Amino acid sequence: MSDIVHTEDAGKLTFTEWDVSGIGISWRLDHPIEHITTPYQTIDLYETDGFGKLLVHDGAVMLTERDEHAYHEMLVHVPLFSHPNPKRVLVIGGGDGGTLREIVKHSSVELARQVEIDEEVVNIARNHMPQLAVAFDHPKVDLIIGDGIKAVEDAEPGSYDIILVDSTDPIGPAVQLFEAPFYRNVHRALTADGIVACQIASPILHLEQVKKVVTTLRGIFDSVEPFIVKIPAYPSGNWAFAMSRKNSKLRVEPDAANAEAIEAESQYWNRAIHKAAFALPQRVKRALESN
Amino acid sequence: MSDIVHTEDAGKLTFTEWDVSGIGISWRLDHPIEHITTPYQTIDLYETDGFGKLLVHDGAVMLTERDEHAYHEMLVHVPLFSHPNPKRVLVIGGGDGGTLREIVKHSSVELARQVEIDEEVVNIARNHMPQLAVAFDHPKVDLIIGDGIKAVEDAEPGSYDIILVDSTDPIGPAVQLFEAPFYRNVHRALTADGIVACQIASPILHLEQVKKVVTTLRGIFDSVEPFIVKIPAYPSGNWAFAMSRKNSKLRVEPDAANAEAIEAESQYWNRAIHKAAFALPQRVKRALESN
Repeated sequence: MSDIVHTEDAGKLTFTEWDVSGIGISWRLDHPIEHITTPYQTIDLYETDGFGKLLVHDGAVMLTERDEHAYHEMLVHVPLFSHPNPKRVLVIGGGDGGTLREIVKHSSVELARQVEIDEEVVNIARNHMPQLAVAFDHPKVDLIIGDGIKAVEDAEPGSYDIILVDSTDPIGPAVQLFEAPFYRNVHRALTADGIVACQIASPILHLEQVKKVVTTLRGIFDSVEPFIVKIPAYPSGNWAFAMSRKNSKLRVEPDAANAEAIEAESQYWNRAIHKAAFALPQRVKRALESN
Repeated sequence: MSDIVHTEDAGKLTFTEWDVSGIGISWRLDHPIEHITTPYQTIDLYETDGFGKLLVHDGAVMLTERDEHAYHEMLVHVPLFSHPNPKRVLVIGGGDGGTLREIVKHSSVELARQVEIDEEVVNIARNHMPQLAVAFDHPKVDLIIGDGIKAVEDAEPGSYDIILVDSTDPIGPAVQLFEAPFYRNVHRALTADGIVACQIASPILHLEQVKKVVTTLRGIFDSVEPFIVKIPAYPSGNWAFAMSRKNSKLRVEPDAANAEAIEAESQYWNRAIHKAAFALPQRVKRALESN
């Protein structure tokens, strides 16, 4: 979904991620920090002018330090505050650690298990982004370097309250994380009131891709609720996620005491944004209704 | 707030608008269409790959044909559906015509007066973007080429139900459109239940600027409600607007019959997005509360 161009502007190196739609997002760079080729992907880390560090996998922007909180807070707090008592949480991917950091803020959580295929992503976070890596050694965390697809396949039925798919874009090995066989295993691995949340694509630029994933999820789960998060580093500055439930009758408002404590530490999530994120622009609503 | 870089990528000319924060938005261009220097600004029009035409004033992106509906629908429908019976509407700026196009969809409106300082903007829309220019010759429309600041100064007290400030960014002549003397005149020109809406800046990248304008408005109006719109062409893909009322007790839900008719034609606005747009990310909420 992108290629990379380095150009000189005002004496600075710049990085541009081009979207297939013909729009790009560019950053002025201070200097490159890491360039690693792992068995799974190429990882680049840059120091930017104004956005902190910029993490790139196979040419696709994963995060900047300045705006990562929006992605991680919403991927975690929306499903966890939609469940009455989330105790066991599984994260597929999410090697940078931001998702774990948000999960351990929930006092109900007893186990936050993460299965990340590429140890180098964890190392990059540990070495360069301590504010993301902060929960790797938390007593509730079980960090496994391994295949997340297999972990879900092998999981005991009904063994997780929440599963979070914190994946890269649907290219290469991550493509299966957007398809039905994986989500049938996720469904099986969840408890009866279980919830899965995943990131999809831009609701503005990649509406067909969003529709395809939502349709897949609707074929497996009792209810599927897409929501949108403002993320300046991603194409169009807005990204679609979906929260899918095994039991659509379960309707839970964020618990007030917990919500206030987490709002006090948040940059993005709060109870108003939690609700508002499910409102879709008319063009998106129309496309997803006509499934 | 920007400079312009043309680079060659894959044989295509590209255009980048750089934000002061160090992030840029780039487009692949098919070809330039117009480059005009008027007494007020430099205007460029490009044909892009994938976003239709791209309109640029003094290096700042005004709109692309692909995403202009979000800006225009929200600038118009949010305030008009928040007023019980908007009859007389004044637009300051908005020469591309998109705001007028949305206003005339409201059956209550009797007069849509627009004061645009630069006739060339109107000409560009008439010549190249007929889907934006469609309302210039509508019987309810009174299009005036002139100084919007003076038009508000000279307006009879209580002569408009709604005033929409559809301005460029706060650089050069538009800077006054973000300041107290102008908004005191807007307040005077509005009826007792009158509402003014304006665009401000990115709530993510330019939070200080948003806070400054909101503080100015709070010093003059009975209530000020910031809201956010997803606009991929603007820095961070999200833009803050504010709706300010002379009478904060006025609380109106969108009228169901009108709302359904307008939703049927909309790309962005609907009743759910109307409400949801006022939910602010926690960091933005915190900053605007601490005014």
